[in-house]
Amino acid sequence: MKHARIAWTGAVHQAVPHGEHQLQLVDGRIINEDEVVWLPPVTPRTVFALGLNYADHAKELAFKAPEVPLVFLKGTNAFTGHRGISRRPADATYMHYECELAVIIGTSGYRISKAHAMEHVAGYTVANDYAIRDYLENWYRPNLRVKNRDACTPLGPWWVDRDDIADPMKLALTTRVNGAVTQQGTTADMIFDIPTLIEYLSSFMTLSPGDIILTGTPEGLADVKVGDVIDTEIEGIGCLTNTIVDDATWFGVDKQGVNAQ
Amino acid sequence: MKHARIAWTGAVHQAVPHGEHQLQLVDGRIINEDEVVWLPPVTPRTVFALGLNYADHAKELAFKAPEVPLVFLKGTNAFTGHRGISRRPADATYMHYECELAVIIGTSGYRISKAHAMEHVAGYTVANDYAIRDYLENWYRPNLRVKNRDACTPLGPWWVDRDDIADPMKLALTTRVNGAVTQQGTTADMIFDIPTLIEYLSSFMTLSPGDIILTGTPEGLADVKVGDVIDTEIEGIGCLTNTIVDDATWFGVDKQGVNAQ
Repeated sequence: MKHARIAWTGAVHQAVPHGEHQLQLVDGRIINEDEVVWLPPVTPRTVFALGLNYADHAKELAFKAPEVPLVFLKGTNAFTGHRGISRRPADATYMHYECELAVIIGTSGYRISKAHAMEHVAGYTVANDYAIRDYLENWYRPNLRVKNRDACTPLGPWWVDRDDIADPMKLALTTRVNGAVTQQGTTADMIFDIPTLIEYLSSFMTLSPGDIILTGTPEGLADVKVGDVIDTEIEGIGCLTNTIVDDATWFGVDKQGVNAQ
Repeated sequence: MKHARIAWTGAVHQAVPHGEHQLQLVDGRIINEDEVVWLPPVTPRTVFALGLNYADHAKELAFKAPEVPLVFLKGTNAFTGHRGISRRPADATYMHYECELAVIIGTSGYRISKAHAMEHVAGYTVANDYAIRDYLENWYRPNLRVKNRDACTPLGPWWVDRDDIADPMKLALTTRVNGAVTQQGTTADMIFDIPTLIEYLSSFMTLSPGDIILTGTPEGLADVKVGDVIDTEIEGIGCLTNTIVDDATWFGVDKQGVNAQ
């Protein structure tokens, strides 16, 4: 089952997709997709993001593949929903998408073995973990300016129950920029697979419902420009759409009257 | 005013200290400190932690003082309250405390100037941001095993209103291990002061109420042993107490019957 979370007529609702362009609320009402604001499908608790978890991508960045998972955390401000906007600051020279399988923890656990790891997964969604390469300013990497800007990580459109995905380690990942495919990969190429990541993280900290693991991205990164529409799609899960905007659109400069600063 | 958050008789309460060893609830009831469980005084939203923000500490670790703030995030699992326990794993060879001034954001802001930064501060508390040096396993530093273990960051005992602290940049920090002073410093020695940190973080992301900035620690770190009682105290704010326990105590091994694994 697919679980979306949307804002519509004064409230936040759980919804499921209904046909191509509609959603159905829990009480049965059918609404049109263009009337809603899509929110991240789960309210993220602690969000882990993997660096260099696809060997080809590590190579693309000229890094040696890691021997232990490289994990950093992301803050609440970083997330936005399907059909949202992300900002490319005027001074950025290289901002790239990252199509990633996001694993949602459903059941608490500590020292979870690989064999039991999947029992702790509620389901999956798609993440697009944008990075601005210019801002890699020190050896605390990746620093917050690179990976924790407001709305730099679209999440959605919905999440899908674990049992609806036969094998999460065999899913095609595809990114399209204005409809043209720019990134293709498969979760089969992860260096540390989902059970290994859950075993690793839970070896020193408790995982809890609502925690999310962004599992990294394969090769095929490209600079995105203002106005680009980015689709990040994962087989069997969904296609997450985001549009890149400039500072003026982001800040609504054209809407600011004479009294604006 | 001091604001504590405690669990007592089936509920979580706001409370203020009453004399040396008692607390007063909002409805006026007086309770004894030894009857309560102290919780982190605020529910942390996004928590930022500063690396090497005191020049003497950077020198102690043989690092060059940073030119931009070195900031990493901490997850929800890492926090525990006053009079809690933190675990020293059997394989750790160097686990040290870090007495830190914690700044609590009270009002949202983006692109906040230094001149207006303090208007966004609700108040302050004390953090003890334990680290296990052994686990610095790669160049994604500091990695989660070092800084995001369960209950590795006591916070409290209460938070204090901003206006009760005349100058947060002139506060003495003191750590005592079993009563003996081991770390002494002053917030005057921060490389990036509070207004600078707020200006920096809000230059690329929105700060929100409940966000907390752990501002770093001065020199004077020392290895802590099982059974040590660690007091981290900041002038005018409070004294936060924590006890180091071993794996057996942490996991309650002596309480596990024949059916335990």
